[in-house]
Amino acid sequence: MAKLDTFVMKIALIQQNFYKSKKKTIKKTILAIKKASKNNAKLIVLQELHQTQYFCQSEDVNNFDLASSWEEDKIFWSKVAKKYKVVLVTSLFEKRATGLYHNSAVVFEKDGSIAGIYRKMHIPDDPGFYEKFYFTPGDLGFKPIKTSVGTLGVLVCWDQWYPEAARIMTLSGADILIYPTAIGWFRADSKEEKRKQLEAWIAVQRGHAIANTLPVVTVNRVGFEKDQSGQLDGIKFWGNSFVFDAQGKLLVQGSSKKEQLLYCDIDMKKSENIRRWWPFLRDRRVECYKKISKRYID
Amino acid sequence: MAKLDTFVMKIALIQQNFYKSKKKTIKKTILAIKKASKNNAKLIVLQELHQTQYFCQSEDVNNFDLASSWEEDKIFWSKVAKKYKVVLVTSLFEKRATGLYHNSAVVFEKDGSIAGIYRKMHIPDDPGFYEKFYFTPGDLGFKPIKTSVGTLGVLVCWDQWYPEAARIMTLSGADILIYPTAIGWFRADSKEEKRKQLEAWIAVQRGHAIANTLPVVTVNRVGFEKDQSGQLDGIKFWGNSFVFDAQGKLLVQGSSKKEQLLYCDIDMKKSENIRRWWPFLRDRRVECYKKISKRYID
Repeated sequence: MAKLDTFVMKIALIQQNFYKSKKKTIKKTILAIKKASKNNAKLIVLQELHQTQYFCQSEDVNNFDLASSWEEDKIFWSKVAKKYKVVLVTSLFEKRATGLYHNSAVVFEKDGSIAGIYRKMHIPDDPGFYEKFYFTPGDLGFKPIKTSVGTLGVLVCWDQWYPEAARIMTLSGADILIYPTAIGWFRADSKEEKRKQLEAWIAVQRGHAIANTLPVVTVNRVGFEKDQSGQLDGIKFWGNSFVFDAQGKLLVQGSSKKEQLLYCDIDMKKSENIRRWWPFLRDRRVECYKKISKRYID
Repeated sequence: MAKLDTFVMKIALIQQNFYKSKKKTIKKTILAIKKASKNNAKLIVLQELHQTQYFCQSEDVNNFDLASSWEEDKIFWSKVAKKYKVVLVTSLFEKRATGLYHNSAVVFEKDGSIAGIYRKMHIPDDPGFYEKFYFTPGDLGFKPIKTSVGTLGVLVCWDQWYPEAARIMTLSGADILIYPTAIGWFRADSKEEKRKQLEAWIAVQRGHAIANTLPVVTVNRVGFEKDQSGQLDGIKFWGNSFVFDAQGKLLVQGSSKKEQLLYCDIDMKKSENIRRWWPFLRDRRVECYKKISKRYID
């Protein structure tokens, strides 16, 4: 066999707490980005809605104020990406128009330009995760974002439970799947139930890595955040940010308890090798998949 | 919350060797079925092409003889299902017409009637697994089979790498996903590579369980089988038959070395509970999945 290309890239995952204010939280994020850049990370991934608290624990119209800085936020993170010369995956609260909001991942090129935007497509709505109140489901589809470090299949949190999203990103040329995330436990659940939830969350994404022969990078919040409305206890975000390689091998996994700046070397060309031996894309029965576009096959 | 129904059913997985002849092999299978029935298993799943050796290690036209008993095979297994009063998932070499063959799972009802047939949809072709030579890809689609113990989403081996297959079975009302399988190692691969292959195989199917909130039952061959053509060493089928519950919890896992009759109690109604808390089906973006029917999105 001819020697295949490799392209090993260092990426950084910033798993962090919320520090009671946007300003303080961002300060911590910037410190971590600075450090990661110094340590030669070329791609840095932040957690879901990393600027603020996870405000979707309750339905409060005042929280729409948090999106009012959308235009300035983009300029701010653009400068950060440029300053530290990194491709940066951010997760911002997008105000698209008055009364129209999205949960959007904005990817910045290392020169500060916007490489692309992904608007979260699958929006959850569960006690403590009232996202349908805040976010209109994305209308940009599952389009990977081209950058200088590869084509990034950026998806967000709840998307991670949907094989369809990972597959369409793959078919559209993604070199890697990336999920900024905010998921955690409720105190009331048993230890066993908590373990099952965490394991299922990791396992379903490992499945995407294997089925699509792509590395998967997921960055999750960590730390306890109170429900501001007082209706629920609050959420203990479970951290555990991770990277799987294109064969589903775990390369790194974060703590469930503390902030971490995690590094991982990914061979962005490994899929070439794996897919020669596991040619799943070759044998897809594309003429028989139409029913996936049905709500249910009654 | 209202108390939800449960329906706990004992199933049996028969993971076995090939005993150099169809007759001897079937004799062993029947003994295991008899025992499982006696021990109250209501559903019994056999491995892929369980009557014979895994003949796809080489391309040999004489192997088509193995399908000449297709009509008698169906009658034979029908009688077995009826005698032992079990729903039985078999995997047979179907001769549909002269020169037209399928790799087909035939499901028998406990009264011996045929509940349904699934023709393997995704056909592999790799060194030692020359299935495209023998089997025409199935044309019955991904239709689950209704039985007295539930609606069975029966798929076969290579199908297990395709999230599309699991998803369409789910949307079509499957209560459980079932994969008769024949997969193994080549001696030449490193221990590390073998471990990665086995883990990926388990993990991708665990992903299907979680994404679709359904139990997954996979029965694999075990034991070494020589390549009759002498071109390759042969395959050491890796066993490890397993069951995951609808939340991806491992309920049972077989040995990689020996024959086993494995039992598992499955709550066929557990999905009702899990899906209330993890309502993935609710939030699918069905209007945005059409591209899954493309070979690639160039």
